[in-house]
Amino acid sequence: MWIQVEINLAPRQRGYHLITEEIYRAAPQLSEIKIGLAHLLLQHTSAGLTLNENADPSVREDFERFFNRLVPENEPYYTHTYEGDDDMPAHLKSSLLGCELTLPITDGEFNLGTWQGVYLCEARNRASGRTLILTIQGE
Amino acid sequence: MWIQVEINLAPRQRGYHLITEEIYRAAPQLSEIKIGLAHLLLQHTSAGLTLNENADPSVREDFERFFNRLVPENEPYYTHTYEGDDDMPAHLKSSLLGCELTLPITDGEFNLGTWQGVYLCEARNRASGRTLILTIQGE
Amino acid sequence: MWIQVEINLAPRQRGYHLITEEIYRAAPQLSEIKIGLAHLLLQHTSAGLTLNENADPSVREDFERFFNRLVPENEPYYTHTYEGDDDMPAHLKSSLLGCELTLPITDGEFNLGTWQGVYLCEARNRASGRTLILTIQGE
Repeated sequence: MWIQVEINLAPRQRGYHLITEEIYRAAPQLSEIKIGLAHLLLQHTSAGLTLNENADPSVREDFERFFNRLVPENEPYYTHTYEGDDDMPAHLKSSLLGCELTLPITDGEFNLGTWQGVYLCEARNRASGRTLILTIQGE
Repeated sequence: MWIQVEINLAPRQRGYHLITEEIYRAAPQLSEIKIGLAHLLLQHTSAGLTLNENADPSVREDFERFFNRLVPENEPYYTHTYEGDDDMPAHLKSSLLGCELTLPITDGEFNLGTWQGVYLCEARNRASGRTLILTIQGE
Repeated sequence: MWIQVEINLAPRQRGYHLITEEIYRAAPQLSEIKIGLAHLLLQHTSAGLTLNENADPSVREDFERFFNRLVPENEPYYTHTYEGDDDMPAHLKSSLLGCELTLPITDGEFNLGTWQGVYLCEARNRASGRTLILTIQGE
């Protein structure tokens, strides 16, 4: 069985946001799959997707602080700057974190660790909504 | 054909460890697959998975030294610190390296490059065992 | 339907290169797939694959400058140095960026965002050609 759904995420603040539940809601047919894989592609080059800690918001806040230092704004050597100070850093963060993920499915659910959730990593100051392509295959 | 196996890895020291052979041993049915894909999810948020050089241990030692500098301990802005100095750096390393991989299968084997192996990237000082979910599909 | 193709990329300069069109040309059967997934593995440990901005070459030039600063050459603590100054940094960049990607397929095409393309991230000064394994499954 193949399922493919476009998920439209509402605009969010710059930062790291848990979106696991939104993905579940977009694919109720997931519950029928005993073994399978779910693939997520974020169709953007200035935001990312990653798996990390799903409980304590301080992890997500420390992510924002760390990545802002790792990928500084206004580096004198940036040449791709016409969309603002957050333009080039957002492209770089997207590739450091990645923008696609594959998740195993077992007995109708994502088979993640207890503490794992999907983060949308929003790297723009004033982002529009973001689009995910969810592709599921299983039996 | 779908195969799904839980692989329990013994605890390892902080550092980078080749686990390709352990993955093979967990899935002998792999040998029957002509074309397919194998997906690995590490069910943890304080360790990672990556593909890199499988021969010279100095690469894995330089990985440990590099990532400890890239993601320092005790940054004054970290707020998620209650599990120790290695807590927040481990979460960050996990997302920089990623915790899931997909490998092609050809004629019963992973179709990796000559020098590629799967690394478990252990980022905690005193880690417990780690769990991988291996999901294989092929024909 | 399963398709698996080896793609031989010509040698390229150190830097970031768009290869989306080469991947399309290697798999004309893609046009018959309504829903599916395409997986790319770069069989090397000194180069990477990532999705990023497909239009403005300045993004790719800034990638080269940024990653050269993030992963410096000649760090005194590197021990894996016998292939030159670019040896260990190339391994590290490969794992930071990743060397494998999965792309959704919809109606015979990769279902990427408008601005997304596949980058070959060449991290060696004098690289040989690079080999990709493209594995496609769909219906």
